[in-house]
Amino acid sequence: MKSEFNFIQHIKKSYSLRKIGDDCAVLPKDDATDLVITTDMLVEDIDFRLSTTKPELIGHKSLAVSLSDIAAVGAEPKWALLSIALEEKLWKSDFLDRFYDGWHTLAQRYDVELVGGDISRSTDKLVIDSIVGGEVPKGMAVLRGGARPGDLIFVSGTLGGAAGGLKVIENGGADSNDDDERFGELRKRQMRPEPRIEDGLFLREQDLATSMIDISDGLTADLGHICDASSVGALLNLVAIPIDENLSTLSLSDDDKLSFALGGGEDFELLFTVAPSRAGQLAGKDFYRIGEITSKTGVIEGRINDRVENLKPTGYRHF
Amino acid sequence: MKSEFNFIQHIKKSYSLRKIGDDCAVLPKDDATDLVITTDMLVEDIDFRLSTTKPELIGHKSLAVSLSDIAAVGAEPKWALLSIALEEKLWKSDFLDRFYDGWHTLAQRYDVELVGGDISRSTDKLVIDSIVGGEVPKGMAVLRGGARPGDLIFVSGTLGGAAGGLKVIENGGADSNDDDERFGELRKRQMRPEPRIEDGLFLREQDLATSMIDISDGLTADLGHICDASSVGALLNLVAIPIDENLSTLSLSDDDKLSFALGGGEDFELLFTVAPSRAGQLAGKDFYRIGEITSKTGVIEGRINDRVENLKPTGYRHF
Repeated sequence: MKSEFNFIQHIKKSYSLRKIGDDCAVLPKDDATDLVITTDMLVEDIDFRLSTTKPELIGHKSLAVSLSDIAAVGAEPKWALLSIALEEKLWKSDFLDRFYDGWHTLAQRYDVELVGGDISRSTDKLVIDSIVGGEVPKGMAVLRGGARPGDLIFVSGTLGGAAGGLKVIENGGADSNDDDERFGELRKRQMRPEPRIEDGLFLREQDLATSMIDISDGLTADLGHICDASSVGALLNLVAIPIDENLSTLSLSDDDKLSFALGGGEDFELLFTVAPSRAGQLAGKDFYRIGEITSKTGVIEGRINDRVENLKPTGYRHF
Repeated sequence: MKSEFNFIQHIKKSYSLRKIGDDCAVLPKDDATDLVITTDMLVEDIDFRLSTTKPELIGHKSLAVSLSDIAAVGAEPKWALLSIALEEKLWKSDFLDRFYDGWHTLAQRYDVELVGGDISRSTDKLVIDSIVGGEVPKGMAVLRGGARPGDLIFVSGTLGGAAGGLKVIENGGADSNDDDERFGELRKRQMRPEPRIEDGLFLREQDLATSMIDISDGLTADLGHICDASSVGALLNLVAIPIDENLSTLSLSDDDKLSFALGGGEDFELLFTVAPSRAGQLAGKDFYRIGEITSKTGVIEGRINDRVENLKPTGYRHF
């Protein structure tokens, strides 16, 4: 079946759309600045369940996923809009107040103002569309298409935790209060993702990242997007992938843990490439070097010690 | 029950939000220009039915409702984003291609480019969020809050047709091919609204409108929004309300027809106020003068010949 990525490429080509297909659309603002803008739709029972998630956390996550896209182009978030469809029962409850409380707590940290939105009735499911606008110096947005063979590949934090958190939630509900605090940490990775705004700004200000994306679909899938846009390939050093150590609390084989890290998605860490000559400037940062860009267009390989094999771009796809 | 308008006022006040609550958010772009931006969510079985509506028309309407908001602040539309959640069955069909075809045909007329979006899976219903950005000379966006007592009230076209079209569709389906072409005209008013971009631009360029809104909820409801934002009241001359003449094909009393025009909503005509001294400059335009602004804050009255009575702000509310 065609994926959503195929469809976007299809209309991009058919209708000569120039700006669609990156983490954010980049539009001219003034002589010195570009406007960047992103939209993310979250759907009940696809992206979250009301039965296992506090309204405040849904509010947090709705904004966080969009801020993560802003981070992934190295921009500073500025304003937001929210469109929400909900059924009458939810409207009559305190849901929206609590949702907005969670949204606003995160927005305040980045001085993001809600400037508009829409509230609509739905027949049953809750649907949220989160739109965030930001700014970046003209021509400086970090896109997916700038990776070159030889560039080193980095990730801004550990991976697999969000997928582990989803497993914990699906097994036991959000309120399960296990003594093992690793359960709580995993749940937090799933429900309270932290957008890496500061990391994105650092990488853009220092002009270090040749390409960048946030890990929403999964490491190999999102690396695949960079490779497609840059017409390059990638070789991952699998023993260097930073696997979330809290996964040790789940009964998982080492292979399973690696699968969570490679394909679990929703970790919302930044995945970026840096020219080897500039990599020294990352010293002191909590970034992980996990591989390098190759000239094998579209091919993503994984290396464990001396063994190299092709990796399938696993990761979340809606279709 | 609280309405969605109450909730927006509540968070606007609680969180000191300055920009929310008009047809568009108005944000500084550069020294000469403001950016305006609007978002509208359309939900299956609330805003349209797949069984009675061609995909192309849903595409058209999704964009048209947002362009109408851009028109209502006197701005020029520039770019758009689309977030869409749909179930797998619809994804596998030609729905999205046909939807985008209808969207694009309208977008082309105004040189609006799709610059971004999101495609998500839904459990059942189709949900579309339409986001459009536009531009207006700095400080010149026409807002809801500028009406002054004595200003004359105008509307850009006939009213009630969209509500009539909904009645036709609900009774007979979109494909009912009645000999009476008035049925078709009414259906078109409901499913193919024409955003009044040119009228909005004319009124803003000539600096004629002191306040403006598009009629989405219904004439009295939307006039109520102008009165609230401007701290004024309004007196409508009910015999001057331009009732869509195609309504004559439905079995409606004169009172019912007036109700359709006052409260039916979705006509997407512009409702605006003009200082009496400037009204002469509207000569030659197909605008209808329907009343005047009063100093009775929050009170909307209707006059038929010499009889004046208070009107309830009927019109579409989600909650």
